[in-house]
Amino acid sequence: MGENVLTRAERRRRSEARILDAARALFAEVGYERATIRGIAKAAEVDPALVMQYFGSKQELFQQAVQVSPAAEPGAEELVEHLLGTLNVKLGELPQSSLAMMRSMLTHPEAAASAREVLGRQIDRLAGSMTGDDARLRAALMTLTLLGVTVGHQLLELDELRGVPQEELARLLRPSLRALTGPDVS
Amino acid sequence: MGENVLTRAERRRRSEARILDAARALFAEVGYERATIRGIAKAAEVDPALVMQYFGSKQELFQQAVQVSPAAEPGAEELVEHLLGTLNVKLGELPQSSLAMMRSMLTHPEAAASAREVLGRQIDRLAGSMTGDDARLRAALMTLTLLGVTVGHQLLELDELRGVPQEELARLLRPSLRALTGPDVS
Repeated sequence: MGENVLTRAERRRRSEARILDAARALFAEVGYERATIRGIAKAAEVDPALVMQYFGSKQELFQQAVQVSPAAEPGAEELVEHLLGTLNVKLGELPQSSLAMMRSMLTHPEAAASAREVLGRQIDRLAGSMTGDDARLRAALMTLTLLGVTVGHQLLELDELRGVPQEELARLLRPSLRALTGPDVS
Repeated sequence: MGENVLTRAERRRRSEARILDAARALFAEVGYERATIRGIAKAAEVDPALVMQYFGSKQELFQQAVQVSPAAEPGAEELVEHLLGTLNVKLGELPQSSLAMMRSMLTHPEAAASAREVLGRQIDRLAGSMTGDDARLRAALMTLTLLGVTVGHQLLELDELRGVPQEELARLLRPSLRALTGPDVS
């Protein structure tokens, strides 16, 4: 029975990962507002009801899609690719609620607490795949690097980032983020 | 006469660099409010009047101190060290005006324009020392990395960054920023 439970957990993990991949692709392609649960389910080849069962709402699915997925066997390279894989969504058309949270995270204590919680979850996941005393600090710096890029593009609208394809940004950021994973990734 | 002019320009450049180094050290040590022009001049071994002549005000001196100095002969390593050298001030006690600009840069168009200008000047200086078609983009990513770290520490007050010595942050960020200078720094 133990094995059976493991198998079901593993099956669920794979379905979730497939749904998240499909969600990232669709959010990045058509933006948050026009992406539908039905469209994401279709791309992931699962029933829309399963998406709702696993994620509850489009908003929650989005939140998960911009986070690093808990990888099965993460190594430094996989970790960085997971992070870079969220760039497409982060630099695409965001939900109004995310833009509002980012805009007010610096001025409203409640939004700051909410941002701290979202970033904290991401830092937990990253640090969980890294070793060494400074794993949490390294994970925080990786997360803040992406925060800086997102703020620079979405809110400050820097010319330098306008229209730059995600692959180009990923190419430039990859060695930089890998340097932060350190030599001691598990 | 040409040589004489060059020599004077060079002398001024060196004095400015010494004043900026002293300013960074004092701003980082005692914070913006308690640092004085007189104290900075003393540490730089110049007359306070010269500081005012070169920089005009404490506020302007601060602005310059958190920017990368135009290096005489910048290479990748020097460029990154200049950037890391501004960390101490960025993560110390900032002037109220800087905190206010950072807080409102995401919500007020005027503050966003002001932040874009400040960041743009930094990007210009960095890109000026780098070669390749993507120099401006790389310079923007370096600048946004530091913006993310500053926002995470000063405004979101992430636990992970609290009380971390600047040397430790510099040690972790150095390889990451060097990766962004690319292989093609002049």
